Amino acid sequence: MNRPLEGIRVIDVSRILAGPFCTMLIADLGAEVVKVEIPGSGDPSRSIEPTINGDSVFFISINRGKKSITLDLSKQEGQKTFRDLVQHFDVLVENFVPGTMARFGLDYETLKKSNPRLIYTSISGYGQDGPWAKRPALDITVMAKGGLMSITGLPGGEPLRPGASLADSTAGIFAALSIVSALWQRQKTGEGQHIDTSMLDCQVTMMENPIARYFGTGRIPGPVGTRNPMAAPFQVFSASDHYFAAAIFTNRPEDWEYFCRVMGRPDLGEDARFRSNNDRNRNVDSLTELLQTTFSTKPAAHWLRVFTEAGISCAPVNNVKEVTEDEQVLYRGMIAAIPNASTGTWRVANTPFKMSESTTGPAGAAPGLGEHTNSILREMLGLSDKEIEDLRKKGAI
Amino acid sequence: MNRPLEGIRVIDVSRILAGPFCTMLIADLGAEVVKVEIPGSGDPSRSIEPTINGDSVFFISINRGKKSITLDLSKQEGQKTFRDLVQHFDVLVENFVPGTMARFGLDYETLKKSNPRLIYTSISGYGQDGPWAKRPALDITVMAKGGLMSITGLPGGEPLRPGASLADSTAGIFAALSIVSALWQRQKTGEGQHIDTSMLDCQVTMMENPIARYFGTGRIPGPVGTRNPMAAPFQVFSASDHYFAAAIFTNRPEDWEYFCRVMGRPDLGEDARFRSNNDRNRNVDSLTELLQTTFSTKPAAHWLRVFTEAGISCAPVNNVKEVTEDEQVLYRGMIAAIPNASTGTWRVANTPFKMSESTTGPAGAAPGLGEHTNSILREMLGLSDKEIEDLRKKGAI
Repeated sequence: MNRPLEGIRVIDVSRILAGPFCTMLIADLGAEVVKVEIPGSGDPSRSIEPTINGDSVFFISINRGKKSITLDLSKQEGQKTFRDLVQHFDVLVENFVPGTMARFGLDYETLKKSNPRLIYTSISGYGQDGPWAKRPALDITVMAKGGLMSITGLPGGEPLRPGASLADSTAGIFAALSIVSALWQRQKTGEGQHIDTSMLDCQVTMMENPIARYFGTGRIPGPVGTRNPMAAPFQVFSASDHYFAAAIFTNRPEDWEYFCRVMGRPDLGEDARFRSNNDRNRNVDSLTELLQTTFSTKPAAHWLRVFTEAGISCAPVNNVKEVTEDEQVLYRGMIAAIPNASTGTWRVANTPFKMSESTTGPAGAAPGLGEHTNSILREMLGLSDKEIEDLRKKGAI
Repeated sequence: MNRPLEGIRVIDVSRILAGPFCTMLIADLGAEVVKVEIPGSGDPSRSIEPTINGDSVFFISINRGKKSITLDLSKQEGQKTFRDLVQHFDVLVENFVPGTMARFGLDYETLKKSNPRLIYTSISGYGQDGPWAKRPALDITVMAKGGLMSITGLPGGEPLRPGASLADSTAGIFAALSIVSALWQRQKTGEGQHIDTSMLDCQVTMMENPIARYFGTGRIPGPVGTRNPMAAPFQVFSASDHYFAAAIFTNRPEDWEYFCRVMGRPDLGEDARFRSNNDRNRNVDSLTELLQTTFSTKPAAHWLRVFTEAGISCAPVNNVKEVTEDEQVLYRGMIAAIPNASTGTWRVANTPFKMSESTTGPAGAAPGLGEHTNSILREMLGLSDKEIEDLRKKGAI
């Protein structure tokens, strides 16, 4: 079977997370991704611990299946080589602070002159324009400014960070969606375009529901522990031994009565405070206390069994090890093996593309720094060994 | 300018959040989305509080720019009408518990016979196959099973939920990316396909970094407050009045010395425990305590000013109200106005698609229940007023 984006070539000067996460998705969908790295040190994530035999697991996880060439874009020879290379690509991805590519003479306006079909993708913290455009951003500053931390935590408590770098990764997915949409448009118009993905914009989109509630009520949402602020019960409970999650999302009294019978508290099903979801949400503190009292009498396995048998949503609160060993996660092939020079193979999280007529997923090892410099300069640009050697002497590759 | 997905028709039987979030993105990219709802009550999210003049803000926010028709898919007449309609669509989106569409006689194998170009998109909690496939899922159960809650919270503390329904929304984005990739593939092969998006699969992808760290070290990541577990300093600090975020991500000692000079603690720049990012990460508790001591002496505005002037990443921890009034958020048009019958206009979060040659964003009001039933049955299927009336009497629409 084909990979959906087979034949699409992506030149990727992005570093660290948001950009490389985007091109990981695009590579797993079948595009050929050529990663451009600075000679000597490469993508800064190559030096981030922990490492296995000197390879950063941060780097390996999101750069599998890509090729690597070195180019110093601050040098004229590096810029010229980059401009020559861009002719051969459909998509460019960069995530420098806005203005950086223009300083290198590699902005969209310049590059589109010689490649009008180019889809030029800029990912930045706050966008290419606006009062914050030129500020450097990192995941935590964008999550802070975008409001997600203000609603994560215990009620009345300090703001907390969701445990993964979601400002980076959501921007990466949105950039990938923008890229494929631009490819779709290009096959009708013949023209590329400039995509301007802002991590902060993406955060605002992910906050659509808290924003809708704020506009609807004038009340500023705060942290609510594990609860969903629009549904109840819809949270984590503490059983006698472990945590577990259970949830319903319904205004029908008969669904609530059923939930109560299943947990062995039919009396709660009749309680006037709790008939509909909206009722329960208004009285959620009393509700949580009553449910918690019952749930704490038996182990999590008991509650997971009775709710599962009854067809009610429930799940254990898995740690990361348990996720990697989970029967459903493994059945779905979500832990993938890729080749790795020093360990033979290495396990990474897969991407979630399951398409009946397409092959998707990691296409190979993460590249060594500059592993494909010579072959790509030779094959795409027709450079001779001597010309390549000259570029190397000048520090351009 | 064109919208990227102009001319693409999507028939959407999904409800609540993951599916409607996906089709919101697709609609904002220019596709025509026809939402199919159950007669009488419609999408369950229509009855979720808070409401404005009877309209659920949950519903309005993610269903703007769509059309609505009613069809009872459990009735034979509803199924036949649906099958007739599907001929006119490029994409179908559903997020029932797996098996439901087959019970209605509306599974992919059946529908592709008469529309082989159809891109049939199933979004589910755990996927269409595997031991957990048939279990009902809600956002909280997927976040629990996928591990994100186990790394969100205070060190040593209970698992917490990121404050937004991220298991739903990330699945929605990944489904949208799969759909546009399948459209791209279809223009080469002429064939549609079945997309099987699992919310749990999507969670695993978002957990690629904690999973990489676990595989790299054998240590199970736990919650670390506001910290990034691979970088330091990269967290929220408490100034004398407010919280603020500040971060660097570098192994170069000169970057760290600069950070220390900017904050007025050049002595820390020389401290052997903190020279590189990896050094600082190993000694993060001491580092945090030392930084926090200095930061607590002055207000957040002071630290934000000096770090901003120095070009170091920093941001306030905004609440939801502050997000909707933020100068950069407003400059970027991330709060959009849509028409609304009872209020004139209504504000919603925009989507983050900024493309130089495309129009994107909300295309109109959220539809009333069945607002477009008559017009669509008339125009697409050529039904007469009498035939439509008959369907209504039978409760099929």
